[in-house]
Amino acid sequence: MAWARPDAQVIDVSKIPHGRSTGQDEINRLLVEHARAGRRVVRVKGGDPFVFGRGFEEVLACAKAGVPTRVVPGVTSSVAGPAVAGIPVTHRGLVQGFTVISGHVPPDHPESTLDYAALARSGTTLVVLMGVRTLPEIVTALIANGLDPATPCAVVADATLASQRVVRSTLADVVDDTKAADIGAPAVTVIGAVAGLEP
Amino acid sequence: MAWARPDAQVIDVSKIPHGRSTGQDEINRLLVEHARAGRRVVRVKGGDPFVFGRGFEEVLACAKAGVPTRVVPGVTSSVAGPAVAGIPVTHRGLVQGFTVISGHVPPDHPESTLDYAALARSGTTLVVLMGVRTLPEIVTALIANGLDPATPCAVVADATLASQRVVRSTLADVVDDTKAADIGAPAVTVIGAVAGLEP
Repeated sequence: MAWARPDAQVIDVSKIPHGRSTGQDEINRLLVEHARAGRRVVRVKGGDPFVFGRGFEEVLACAKAGVPTRVVPGVTSSVAGPAVAGIPVTHRGLVQGFTVISGHVPPDHPESTLDYAALARSGTTLVVLMGVRTLPEIVTALIANGLDPATPCAVVADATLASQRVVRSTLADVVDDTKAADIGAPAVTVIGAVAGLEP
Repeated sequence: MAWARPDAQVIDVSKIPHGRSTGQDEINRLLVEHARAGRRVVRVKGGDPFVFGRGFEEVLACAKAGVPTRVVPGVTSSVAGPAVAGIPVTHRGLVQGFTVISGHVPPDHPESTLDYAALARSGTTLVVLMGVRTLPEIVTALIANGLDPATPCAVVADATLASQRVVRSTLADVVDDTKAADIGAPAVTVIGAVAGLEP
């Protein structure tokens, strides 16, 4: 909040993994309440608000209350996390697409819309966000659906921070290698030939 | 280049679709030549340099020449284009992932790594960049592989510009609707349930 106006009212609604958290309903309520009070409300998020950011839920809540909104896109960690580790999500002649999924909803979750057989065969780079905890299940699902266990993998933790770490591995070994390196959230996992590229 | 230092040497290497263009080899050569001459070279790109940006080719060319580089991630139009039109690429409870592909390499191209049967079934939002020309082939391939013709589609042209236009349609009708609206490049196409959401 260092860049906020000195007289701005700052309301911390951080969601810290396994830590303090503000419910989404409460966040929606605050947005509407302060906007209706005639204030200009800026909802600041990390990454892009529409990439697993629940940003659209906030847009909907405001729309329902007659509060106009404008969305400012951000830099998504799904692309930027790999990039700062020197990994491009696409590379000409090697891969023409990338798929970003959330590890927050694991493969066997009833709410999951994801078809892991299709993900394993899509021919795109696979990027997993929020997937440190569910990585074992995701890797198992991909291998069971035919993705080559020798497929290069990279895990980028704490991207852009001084504590940034990168584990280069393969689909077969990435779970063990990540554990051995004691990698925790937040981390981005890249699965595909691009994860094997090094300048 | 309005934000460059007044004394910066500006070299225009724009690639204008069907217009003037600088070859990638020439761009790589310029980067290395000027860096070796002791200058600080800033390669400015639109969008993110690693999302179909050929940025990693430039990183490799520099590495080969012993020139150190640093990559600054950007805001990718694959997420930002839909966002400014009010379309989230993910939405909780609706879809847990998105796939970004380039229409530059059409479905039947020998270089394509993409499996359209898998793309049609992945359960992710599909975002097509640089796909205005090849949209008919992409749509045909997706429908042939079982994607529901009633799937919502949206095409966002000139995203963020005053000339921005959005066509809301379905997979079955998006080619005709885009033609009828005289939509040209640059445009981002979104295919999936999120394209049917409106605040």
